Amino acid sequence: MSESSKDIQTQKTLAKLRVLADSVLKEIGKHDNPHMDIPLRTLSNVHFDEKKQIIQLGKQTQQRYFFNVAQAKKFMQTLLIASATKKLLDSGKTTSIRDLYYMTKHTMGDTEENTFNDQIDSDPIIEDLEVTIDALREELNLFASNRGALVGDITIWDSGDTIHCNKMGSGGWSIPSICEENLIQFKEHDAKFVLLVEKDAVWRRLNEDKFWKKHKCILVHGQGMAPRGVRRLLNRLCSELKLPLYVLVDNDPWGLYIYSVIKQGSINLAYESVRMAIPSAKFIGLSSFDREKYKLPKNVTIKLDETDIRRAKQILDYPWFQKKEWQKELKEMLKNNVKLELEALSAKGISFVTEEYLPDKIKNKEWLE
Amino acid sequence: MSESSKDIQTQKTLAKLRVLADSVLKEIGKHDNPHMDIPLRTLSNVHFDEKKQIIQLGKQTQQRYFFNVAQAKKFMQTLLIASATKKLLDSGKTTSIRDLYYMTKHTMGDTEENTFNDQIDSDPIIEDLEVTIDALREELNLFASNRGALVGDITIWDSGDTIHCNKMGSGGWSIPSICEENLIQFKEHDAKFVLLVEKDAVWRRLNEDKFWKKHKCILVHGQGMAPRGVRRLLNRLCSELKLPLYVLVDNDPWGLYIYSVIKQGSINLAYESVRMAIPSAKFIGLSSFDREKYKLPKNVTIKLDETDIRRAKQILDYPWFQKKEWQKELKEMLKNNVKLELEALSAKGISFVTEEYLPDKIKNKEWLE
Repeated sequence: MSESSKDIQTQKTLAKLRVLADSVLKEIGKHDNPHMDIPLRTLSNVHFDEKKQIIQLGKQTQQRYFFNVAQAKKFMQTLLIASATKKLLDSGKTTSIRDLYYMTKHTMGDTEENTFNDQIDSDPIIEDLEVTIDALREELNLFASNRGALVGDITIWDSGDTIHCNKMGSGGWSIPSICEENLIQFKEHDAKFVLLVEKDAVWRRLNEDKFWKKHKCILVHGQGMAPRGVRRLLNRLCSELKLPLYVLVDNDPWGLYIYSVIKQGSINLAYESVRMAIPSAKFIGLSSFDREKYKLPKNVTIKLDETDIRRAKQILDYPWFQKKEWQKELKEMLKNNVKLELEALSAKGISFVTEEYLPDKIKNKEWLE
Repeated sequence: MSESSKDIQTQKTLAKLRVLADSVLKEIGKHDNPHMDIPLRTLSNVHFDEKKQIIQLGKQTQQRYFFNVAQAKKFMQTLLIASATKKLLDSGKTTSIRDLYYMTKHTMGDTEENTFNDQIDSDPIIEDLEVTIDALREELNLFASNRGALVGDITIWDSGDTIHCNKMGSGGWSIPSICEENLIQFKEHDAKFVLLVEKDAVWRRLNEDKFWKKHKCILVHGQGMAPRGVRRLLNRLCSELKLPLYVLVDNDPWGLYIYSVIKQGSINLAYESVRMAIPSAKFIGLSSFDREKYKLPKNVTIKLDETDIRRAKQILDYPWFQKKEWQKELKEMLKNNVKLELEALSAKGISFVTEEYLPDKIKNKEWLE
């Protein structure tokens, strides 16, 4: 593929890789010790940006030198990964981070030494490269895992094909692992909001009941914790189409954590928050107050276990859960000492979630932010 | 929904439920002790049918009586589940087995006794009902989990929508958890075979390279062990369209087990083999001989661990792996003492699997059956 025929995003990412390579080459030309400045991905360099309402990486960096016994291997690994992603971008192909590990793994010369011994070695190098040149792995044509599906009144351009998401049957469009602009674009739509549900079984219920048609929404599931592809797609749906996002998860600390990652980003991958987090995301349920409100039978609750309690207490301390309403919500869960799955709503009838619970919540603006 | 407006399959399943209920009612009318005959799902009642080449359930049954202290609860649970699935079929709605647990869970009268305490109690009852009336859970409008995607030159009718699977972009059509005839039907197609790949990352590679277009195939992944929806869909694609199925898995005992379940069915769920297993499925790789054949670098192999070795020896003893070629294949894995992931092929180039490995194998009919 010639340089000019590439899409603008690919050209931008290639330019970022070139800046990195040029700076190393320049140092070599000057007989300096070649090095890279790599933003630190440690907890001490992560903070919650109150204004933007997202978790972000700070400004601390570490230097990685070539002539340094402790750093030489990592220095070479970083350039090896950078060079492999350049080849990917040049060829216009995408691949998995596992694949990239195999593609860059080789034994060096006549030694017994491998470039990488395990994917555990190559994954952090990919993350180093992402933060160093400020590009998501997806912009480097790399992806992790693929999960999740979408239906709704929207037409999506996916790699040359036009997907009418209102004609996708019971299955839906499988959300790809890379949802960057060069591969995925939004065309016409007639949606008023996006609804993310944690569980595919509940998604199927809502799709079967054509909830998205009646309430004009885009219906997405991420099969548990939404993978990066789903998060990026949601971020783009919300920012490009100016749609609100409602999140429907189990009433347990794990469900709240899923919501938290969608909304503010995660501590581990703070550098990606800017392009992944959706600070305006609204938590629509299940709330710890729903059990009483909807008179759910007592026997559908599950007692919190030790991990639940520990996690709930952690979340209670998160800076982004300090609003009065959130503290009330979390304390209610701990007080009741029970959790509640989305499926528990079915005790009130198979389509209770479609016909009563969600319309009620949306109409009365009963959500937490 | 009136009886006559229902599709034929639903009518058939309802009739089967009615036979069960009628026989119980008849015994009540005669003041007999009401009972059900439930096929035994124990290992002793499972055998490998050499002629059909599938794992099947035998003819042993157990009696479940109402007036029997040890059986009364299970008897009532079975009728409760049967009655709930009748309601599902009547309403034309589908739901998850977790949902069904919540729908049928209630506290009995003024006691502290619940109909079910946990999903662990209701799942085996669903399986009892499936074998007793000879209907897959999907025919009872029930499903477990949803995974997997499909692309290729085929048009599929899914619950009223027409899906052109050759225009599904990078994502593909998300394979629904229920793939029975009343919901999913095959229309025109231009495919010569079906290719199932274990990993979604490899599926993405093949889709991006438009392998399915060049080689006229239907490309499916099941994200690891193929879930029931994918297995049922593959079974129907092979039997209704008379297409051969090639299976591409990791070269490790788990990959071989995935192939084995696709082909012969599983011991746990032997009763479903007739409608799920595909005895003609061909194993196209990775073979333990591929490393040498394709000169893969030594450092992409992974040493077998204890679990691998134990499992490989188990598979070596399976009646359906007794063919000379299979014994040779399995013994080679144990002799080499290494396994190989699909991604290892990328050490030969990112599109090696698309451009060389698969075309080569198919052209030379290099597979095991």
